[in-house]
Amino acid sequence: MDYEGYVADLGREARCAAKHVAVSAVAQRNAALSAMAVALDERRELLLAANAQDLEAGASAGLDAAMLDRLALNNARIDALIEGLEQVRSLPDPVGAIDGVRTMDSGIRVGKMRVPLGVIGIIYESRPNVTIEAASLCLKAGNAAILRGGSEAIHSNRALGDVISGALSEVGLPLGAVQVVAHTDRAVVGALIRQRDSIDIIIPRGGKGLIERIAQESLVPVLKHLDGICHVYIDDAADAGKAMAIAVNAKTQRFGTCNTMETLLLAQSQSALLPELVQAMQAHGVELRGCERARQAATEITVAATELDWSTEYLAPILSVRVVDGLDDAIEHIARYSSGHTESIVTENHSTAMRFLREVDSSSVMINASTRFADGFEYGLGAEIGISTDKLHARGPVGLEGLTSTKFVVFGDGHIRT
Amino acid sequence: MDYEGYVADLGREARCAAKHVAVSAVAQRNAALSAMAVALDERRELLLAANAQDLEAGASAGLDAAMLDRLALNNARIDALIEGLEQVRSLPDPVGAIDGVRTMDSGIRVGKMRVPLGVIGIIYESRPNVTIEAASLCLKAGNAAILRGGSEAIHSNRALGDVISGALSEVGLPLGAVQVVAHTDRAVVGALIRQRDSIDIIIPRGGKGLIERIAQESLVPVLKHLDGICHVYIDDAADAGKAMAIAVNAKTQRFGTCNTMETLLLAQSQSALLPELVQAMQAHGVELRGCERARQAATEITVAATELDWSTEYLAPILSVRVVDGLDDAIEHIARYSSGHTESIVTENHSTAMRFLREVDSSSVMINASTRFADGFEYGLGAEIGISTDKLHARGPVGLEGLTSTKFVVFGDGHIRT
Repeated sequence: MDYEGYVADLGREARCAAKHVAVSAVAQRNAALSAMAVALDERRELLLAANAQDLEAGASAGLDAAMLDRLALNNARIDALIEGLEQVRSLPDPVGAIDGVRTMDSGIRVGKMRVPLGVIGIIYESRPNVTIEAASLCLKAGNAAILRGGSEAIHSNRALGDVISGALSEVGLPLGAVQVVAHTDRAVVGALIRQRDSIDIIIPRGGKGLIERIAQESLVPVLKHLDGICHVYIDDAADAGKAMAIAVNAKTQRFGTCNTMETLLLAQSQSALLPELVQAMQAHGVELRGCERARQAATEITVAATELDWSTEYLAPILSVRVVDGLDDAIEHIARYSSGHTESIVTENHSTAMRFLREVDSSSVMINASTRFADGFEYGLGAEIGISTDKLHARGPVGLEGLTSTKFVVFGDGHIRT
Repeated sequence: MDYEGYVADLGREARCAAKHVAVSAVAQRNAALSAMAVALDERRELLLAANAQDLEAGASAGLDAAMLDRLALNNARIDALIEGLEQVRSLPDPVGAIDGVRTMDSGIRVGKMRVPLGVIGIIYESRPNVTIEAASLCLKAGNAAILRGGSEAIHSNRALGDVISGALSEVGLPLGAVQVVAHTDRAVVGALIRQRDSIDIIIPRGGKGLIERIAQESLVPVLKHLDGICHVYIDDAADAGKAMAIAVNAKTQRFGTCNTMETLLLAQSQSALLPELVQAMQAHGVELRGCERARQAATEITVAATELDWSTEYLAPILSVRVVDGLDDAIEHIARYSSGHTESIVTENHSTAMRFLREVDSSSVMINASTRFADGFEYGLGAEIGISTDKLHARGPVGLEGLTSTKFVVFGDGHIRT
């Protein structure tokens, strides 16, 4: 099959639709989200049947339990998708807002209007819920979207694609506004990331390998999220109770998320806290790997951390622990090993906290809070399309605003430049 | 010579310096700008002598008058550079500002802190003033910069590089904070745009050919400014006096700038204005090329505009003129032929004005104002590094803010996620 031609057609459709969506009334975009929610509710049986096909094929193809779990739809997950659509629907329209209008010496008034980005390509793994989440966010922000999910979810995604198309038709938006790629061949991904003229940005969601490959090969700009090697630093001036609570929460609330702590740094003066911390971690089934000083302070840590441990995103119940001399040493360790996702300091000292905030160069930097808060919902964005570890365009959790651009708007009354 | 190795060294130096500059006090960065201004003033003779070498070599190499003019330094231009440095110095520090802190339901307080981008590579043509302008903006925004100017300006740029290095030393900032490339070989450009690890963004400034080539080949993200095919649309409800003033100013105030109008669109009902408009344009030496209806309305337009005219950035005293049916027709023409830089409508009708503002997808969209206002100074940015016709990261005139990124900052008091 000619995937280049197929993808070029998707691109042309999307570009054309994007012009309509960009100037559509928010009421129409919201109506599309409501129609999707209704259709999801009405077609549960159909969706679950399609998903069962994927699950069966996945099981016989030998997908592991975690992958099958991510692939699965059930009534509770459909409820969550419906609730998510309602949440996105209730968010204010980001498009058309004019900010910061000021009158210049020349007399013109200048401000910035928020506008859609255009066409967004989302490449993701076999998680059908992403299909609905990505569609709703892109559409709400006035964009057209091309969604390419993992091949294992193809039956689920086709069924969800029908839900989306039906909703678009119902409210009179072009079908090109959200297109779900119907082919599973990998060549489609290669073709998508070469569509420089018709796709404005590619957002890959998934494992580090997928994202790195796409970032390397894409001719379209990529908003990427690589790994999350997150740190908590317990400072000399930390409150012991807060330190314990934050460290345990940051590591154990969920093991497989990108904002989970992977390395704990402790000021030397706090090493007396280690035995209790180790006990608490071990009670949650966490394996510890420590530097020499950490192992001296807590003999329960029997495994020595290697150079590799400091730069590993475990996504598992493993924690590396390092005793550092103090703030400077902690900042240096983070600069060297962090993936720039999220770091937190526990301290009661204001100046130390503010230095950490300023000097640590990560997408989220926290004072006395668990790294697990690094999340679009927790930040009040209403929803998130992903977390960017890039510094250009959008950084950290990306909500509706990250899916938009701006333009300057100038109000004159016959003004000319002299 | 091993340009790859040379450029890799520049990149390493810059990356290392960027960490220092990012956390430097604004007073130190401002002091560096002042020291540059003093040094420019003190070394006028030296700078003019170096520039004379470039001008002489340029003249014998057959550079045209316009290129030689852009290459030339003189006392007035040095005064302008000194004044520019003073202006950038007086701008508020963009780095470290925390915006939009809100308390979430969980109790954490979340905001965004503005932070430097990191290392910025500027690739530009033989205009020595860009060396100082780019250095000052990148440094003020807390970044390290690598500046690669056109080879014809090499003696001027080396002398300016000495001015910059001297100022950096004087205030104790690392020399890697601003590095002026001392080699003229084009291989340096090729090596720079492959420095994905040490350069965060490439900003090319110059002709469309240069920028297109760099955008195509760069592995580093590029903030680009292609051509400026700017339109003024005189609506049915335009005030004739404002329309005349704006059209003449947009075309004739300067011919060679990117925000100069290249195509004038008139509503059919306004075609009676054409004879007077044509006279005014011709009085400024502007050649007119018109569609059929335009030539009927003003027989002084003798040249027929071709398809090519609608998509040409003349940068010269030439104007294409088209009579359109009305707003929709104008928006359609602009969507098809504009380069997305700047468009303006002249109208007294509020609804029409607001539709134009919303529906025209360009980096600046204006009501009753000359396109010539699309400029960082006119927009109150204090200065500009360029004008972006991209939609990602920064769009339109790019000042200090476009040279920064943000990070999320979270203030807790022992908060954990439940």
